[in-house]
Amino acid sequence: MSVLSLADVYRARRRIEGRVVRTPLIESQTLSAAADTQVFLKLETVQPTGSFKLRGATNALARLAERGCRKVVTASTGNHGRAVAHAARALGIEATVCMSALVPGNKVEAVRSLGAQVRIVGNSQDDAEHEALRLVREEGFAYVPPFDDLHVIAGQATIGLEIVEALPDVANIVVPLSGGGLFAGVAFAAKNANRAIGLTGVTMARGAAMHASLTAGRPVLVDEVETLADSLGGGIGLENRYTYALTRDLIDETVLLDEASIARGIVHAYRHERLVVEGAAAVGIAALLDGALPAERIQRGPLVLIVTGANIDMKLHHRIVESTPVQSDPLNPL
Amino acid sequence: MSVLSLADVYRARRRIEGRVVRTPLIESQTLSAAADTQVFLKLETVQPTGSFKLRGATNALARLAERGCRKVVTASTGNHGRAVAHAARALGIEATVCMSALVPGNKVEAVRSLGAQVRIVGNSQDDAEHEALRLVREEGFAYVPPFDDLHVIAGQATIGLEIVEALPDVANIVVPLSGGGLFAGVAFAAKNANRAIGLTGVTMARGAAMHASLTAGRPVLVDEVETLADSLGGGIGLENRYTYALTRDLIDETVLLDEASIARGIVHAYRHERLVVEGAAAVGIAALLDGALPAERIQRGPLVLIVTGANIDMKLHHRIVESTPVQSDPLNPL
Repeated sequence: MSVLSLADVYRARRRIEGRVVRTPLIESQTLSAAADTQVFLKLETVQPTGSFKLRGATNALARLAERGCRKVVTASTGNHGRAVAHAARALGIEATVCMSALVPGNKVEAVRSLGAQVRIVGNSQDDAEHEALRLVREEGFAYVPPFDDLHVIAGQATIGLEIVEALPDVANIVVPLSGGGLFAGVAFAAKNANRAIGLTGVTMARGAAMHASLTAGRPVLVDEVETLADSLGGGIGLENRYTYALTRDLIDETVLLDEASIARGIVHAYRHERLVVEGAAAVGIAALLDGALPAERIQRGPLVLIVTGANIDMKLHHRIVESTPVQSDPLNPL
Repeated sequence: MSVLSLADVYRARRRIEGRVVRTPLIESQTLSAAADTQVFLKLETVQPTGSFKLRGATNALARLAERGCRKVVTASTGNHGRAVAHAARALGIEATVCMSALVPGNKVEAVRSLGAQVRIVGNSQDDAEHEALRLVREEGFAYVPPFDDLHVIAGQATIGLEIVEALPDVANIVVPLSGGGLFAGVAFAAKNANRAIGLTGVTMARGAAMHASLTAGRPVLVDEVETLADSLGGGIGLENRYTYALTRDLIDETVLLDEASIARGIVHAYRHERLVVEGAAAVGIAALLDGALPAERIQRGPLVLIVTGANIDMKLHHRIVESTPVQSDPLNPL
């Protein structure tokens, strides 16, 4: 665990303070009743760019700006790109974002509207990353990795810090699992406060690179698959430097969800928590509702679900809500 | 202005700290573009009970608890009742909530599910308040007024404090106007920081008691009317002690909205801000989108809209969203 220190996380927090929201941690009445233990939601949905990614990107860019950097590039499935664009504009830096052709057009436009250049390259997150690295080698850009970077990880770790500070008795934290930047950061900060805190990663059943890598015992490639949790897609990189090892060392279990379950999570968030969330952000709620979290873990005490972002296509959101019948729910009649 | 001091607001903030969320103040890209000035949303939707009312109720109840009180009563159209119930449970106090028969059943159940007793009385907010006052006289309860109380006002004023501290250059604050507790508190804190800050009250065109009272030059009764902004209904009391005079002295203008406009605000919040908001909370957004705010006021600089709560009946929310066609919006393509 020597690659990261708590001081790095404190440095990240100082750097991002005032640029990033210290997000609310709210108990969910319905989920607490369903789980028979206190369940809290960490609402990263209220970050200015609509996702937690702003933390890591802001930390990484602020550090680069301190060193005189004025031109950054990154590769992103959307939320990291938006975060880099937002942070770059705030810091007066020029940003270029490389994306694969699989990224939905609305997410591309969202990055452009934040003032960044967008470059569309290839058909996978790895292709987009290779192009970004080429710009670094050949055109003098500084690279802002979406997850496999200690400053990005330290930025995301501030979420873990906020959780343990607000709720020192937290027994379990459920984290959407993708490239592992969020997971590694949160798990590091949480286990640093109390090794007994359980850390669960939740991801989609198909196309989950970190899960495939943990199973294989080394970083492996997976085919990208369309999923409601599109923010969880993308490879972890065969030359993964930090997040694979940190995740492997800190994770207590991985839970896999099918698409129907993710949709149920989105609908529950809307109907009962009055939250618009993207698929990737609904996986914790979905795992809890579908009984996918180990019972012995839930019984240990207060549970935190990180609700990572709100950036869902609203036509898709409306369609999902529309196609799911309203069930009477005495727990949350509103 | 001598009835309230800034020290009262600081006292309120200390009392409610850790029990109430210091809510995010987020710039809205779409609204900033639409208004051609920076527009920020103060997100009271993320309070544990889903509305700002928790601030005033928590301050009032914590103060009563400090003095040994163990039994409180209030009258409420819903959000104040939920707030009192939540705060009472947190403080180990017994709460009874009186409501008129016009209050939707789901809101009644929401208060009950928070552990409070509910008493349904009469057909107006005034009837419910009279019953609450009877319990005070005859059964030894302490009364927690929904708005016309200095401790409630001081609690709501913490929103104003948070706004001016986070955004010292704020030029205008737009506040949903009902009984005036929120308006008076926010306006007091804001004008105390800078008298030049504009304070706009927004309410529905029909059944708005404070607006009718301001027009009449004294507190008057109005008939309650069904509205999407049901949290803004109810009288201000013919014996109004504080909020009428404070609002009259601090308000720069009142804007009235019809139901279609309020519905548009709800839909915009959902589609473009990814927020589920109740009608009363949508009036600032609606006023801005419909050009109902004076242009000279908008041009003065950064504008804050207080998004007061999320407690809308979700079937109603879905129906409103469904019945409003999707328009293409290049500003916020997501």
